[in-house]
Amino acid sequence: MKKEFLYNEIAGNIAHQIRNGVLKTGDRLPSVRMLSAQHGIGINTAKRIFLELESQSLIEPRSKSGYFVSMPRYMRLPLPEASKPLAVARNTEPNELIDSVYSNMARKDLTLFSIGVPSGDLLPLAKLKKEIVLATRGLKDGGTEYEPLQGNEKLRRMIAARSLNWGGRLKDGDIITTNGCMNALVLCLMAVTKPGHTIAIESPCYPGILQLAVSFGLKVLELPTHPVTGIVMDAFKKLLPKIDACLLVPNFNTPLGYCMPDGHKKEVVTLLAQKGIPLIEDDTYGDLHFGAERPKCCKSFDKEGNVLWCGAVSKTLAPGYRVGWVAPGKYKDQILRMKLIQSLSSTTIIHEAVGNFLLTGRYDNHLRQLRKTLQENYNRYAQVIANHFPQGTKISQPQGGLALWMEFPENIDTAELYNDALKKQISIAPGRMFTLQDQFQNCMRLCIGLPWTDSLGLKLQQLGKLACNL
Amino acid sequence: MKKEFLYNEIAGNIAHQIRNGVLKTGDRLPSVRMLSAQHGIGINTAKRIFLELESQSLIEPRSKSGYFVSMPRYMRLPLPEASKPLAVARNTEPNELIDSVYSNMARKDLTLFSIGVPSGDLLPLAKLKKEIVLATRGLKDGGTEYEPLQGNEKLRRMIAARSLNWGGRLKDGDIITTNGCMNALVLCLMAVTKPGHTIAIESPCYPGILQLAVSFGLKVLELPTHPVTGIVMDAFKKLLPKIDACLLVPNFNTPLGYCMPDGHKKEVVTLLAQKGIPLIEDDTYGDLHFGAERPKCCKSFDKEGNVLWCGAVSKTLAPGYRVGWVAPGKYKDQILRMKLIQSLSSTTIIHEAVGNFLLTGRYDNHLRQLRKTLQENYNRYAQVIANHFPQGTKISQPQGGLALWMEFPENIDTAELYNDALKKQISIAPGRMFTLQDQFQNCMRLCIGLPWTDSLGLKLQQLGKLACNL
Repeated sequence: MKKEFLYNEIAGNIAHQIRNGVLKTGDRLPSVRMLSAQHGIGINTAKRIFLELESQSLIEPRSKSGYFVSMPRYMRLPLPEASKPLAVARNTEPNELIDSVYSNMARKDLTLFSIGVPSGDLLPLAKLKKEIVLATRGLKDGGTEYEPLQGNEKLRRMIAARSLNWGGRLKDGDIITTNGCMNALVLCLMAVTKPGHTIAIESPCYPGILQLAVSFGLKVLELPTHPVTGIVMDAFKKLLPKIDACLLVPNFNTPLGYCMPDGHKKEVVTLLAQKGIPLIEDDTYGDLHFGAERPKCCKSFDKEGNVLWCGAVSKTLAPGYRVGWVAPGKYKDQILRMKLIQSLSSTTIIHEAVGNFLLTGRYDNHLRQLRKTLQENYNRYAQVIANHFPQGTKISQPQGGLALWMEFPENIDTAELYNDALKKQISIAPGRMFTLQDQFQNCMRLCIGLPWTDSLGLKLQQLGKLACNL
Repeated sequence: MKKEFLYNEIAGNIAHQIRNGVLKTGDRLPSVRMLSAQHGIGINTAKRIFLELESQSLIEPRSKSGYFVSMPRYMRLPLPEASKPLAVARNTEPNELIDSVYSNMARKDLTLFSIGVPSGDLLPLAKLKKEIVLATRGLKDGGTEYEPLQGNEKLRRMIAARSLNWGGRLKDGDIITTNGCMNALVLCLMAVTKPGHTIAIESPCYPGILQLAVSFGLKVLELPTHPVTGIVMDAFKKLLPKIDACLLVPNFNTPLGYCMPDGHKKEVVTLLAQKGIPLIEDDTYGDLHFGAERPKCCKSFDKEGNVLWCGAVSKTLAPGYRVGWVAPGKYKDQILRMKLIQSLSSTTIIHEAVGNFLLTGRYDNHLRQLRKTLQENYNRYAQVIANHFPQGTKISQPQGGLALWMEFPENIDTAELYNDALKKQISIAPGRMFTLQDQFQNCMRLCIGLPWTDSLGLKLQQLGKLACNL
């Protein structure tokens, strides 16, 4: 009895350490003899433990070298291939689907795998509240006055200072603040496009960008996009003559989570500058890198001022604060005019509070923790997906950000899965939302910015079961 | 010597009481005999005092009844005539002028007669700060989450409740909140117009509306507008076949301050509904009535849901809060879609705080005080204008709101006055800003939402002197 107990406990502990990344892929385990000596168990029990772990695909024997931690099964889940949208602009908006998914966002009874922002549980609420109270009390006019047109000076200074992290050399005067990143994109599109223009974007693409482009009367050209490296450069070059403007999310793009290699970024910036085609760069996710380094932006390679670099704290700090910005390069006058016309001012108090928050260095502490959580979450999600979702499911390997993209076998329609899941209080974002074309019906996006709990894991398992039943 | 001193003192005291409204137009003054007895002065001295006051136009004799306080001279300043814009759309934006005027807005060294919002000194800062602190602490997520798409429920409920004041019957479900009123107008224009459409507006018109319309590729048709009753109905009816959409500010419009008579409002609503032409109504100033009654809106007469009624607290409570709304009638779905695309959410904390503020009834207390101040300010401004501005100056008689409109003799160019005034640390809004046509070069708008002080009065006198020198 005691032996059986020990056997279970030791096997469980090792499995736990592997699943939680204490032991990592390729780590060598102790030998049978060492394990036996360490825990006072017999050689056969130690052998049984390794066989048990091997049967769970957690470890693998390598000839004459002992046991090693396996590449986890979820790491061996295949990647989706690069997307293959039509090379012509198509504008069939999946409005009904989008309306339905967005209408769930405020429902507290749902597990919202469909959201595109981090859950409040992952945000530094107490510190943010404190900053707002301080800003409210500290501002002489209580924040009732409009800001200067270009935006809060402190906030602009801090954004400029942070540009060093990605090889930028921005000054506060280069930056204009906005009501969140969507507002920055609105101003950029109004400043550099005209109805009838063709805009090139990634595919799949954030639905808000698709809708925005359509609402401005633009033709939307979806570019073939690879889940690890982003837009396919050959296709991009071939389509270049058709393009009047370009809007990319090169770092940890939602839904794919890829990060464009520096070489691609540089080439895109050079090609577009040569043709005089403006590049709107949405870098909202750039600070959410899983790797050690903050990736560069297209803006890092912008010598001509042709890149309108947009960002926000909506995905890292507080979606509901509506704090975003744009460094519009040579389009600064147009953007200032558009801001004057469209909004005059952002919310004075909140922009002041975020400026102060960035000033203290608390932002970086928070980002470190958030990135760790998101990466761990991805691993946990992937593990459940490997074990509970249909055979043949492919998943993205995001290098940062909040999204995980899944591609099911072709017979599975995620619009159907969406309906089934909703009946079980689960909301997902079906793939068709992320295109204006007839694509991605067997795909979906899951938000990994939710706090991991046993019950979240069970919900994800339940979702997998629903998919298996389709 | 003593007699001369007494004479000056008594005349000065009476003049002071008249100028400060202690004695009001039509009040009867004591008889010569009574004045003599009251002050122990001779009959002839008393007579001289009355003659002196009469020569200042402060009092007037009425046959056999003695002396009465005169209609003050400024009340007899003539009104500008109704505007006469061309009956075709012209789009020459006075951008340079607008840029220059707006760039002064944040300068603390200027007397900003050019602003279009109340000064912070007239706002309930302490109470507002308290509400924000309470909202920040009270919201479970610290306001970091997005609001529901339609906006803060409490705020919508309070706006709906207040619609009773103008004969509205709105429910919270009829209202969508926005980032201030300009954002509401943006959403409305995007929802009901297409580039190339013709939009009818008042003339003179708020520059933000002109710029917005031009930026959306609309043709702008300026309507002849009377300074007391608003758009000239005959001209409006004649131009109706040319119009695709209409944007009016019927209550205390900036810069004219007029209030459209109910009959006109009703007729405009009926005519537009018959033709299926949407009416965007900007009612941001509606609560700033100088008279006892809150005026009705066009929306009050809207049976077809054809009026998109927009409002905000930007002109009454806090410009920098960006709290606005629209009750879009039958265009609700389009507006919700546009809000989803353009902004997703307003600033959660601030909208919650304003919702709470409206709930307490403090808003009405504040409005009462603000209205009183604005009306008193108008009288003070008008008095200075009557005494220190060029002969032949005409001024509006606003029935509410924040603006006073002046028309100088034709030889005075207010763009020139603007330059001269800026050298004296005074900023004004030249008339040419308020049109896309070749009009109003001899006009300007002054903000009456500044706290009245002796030094403000002197600045206004100085401005008058500059105008006299042109």
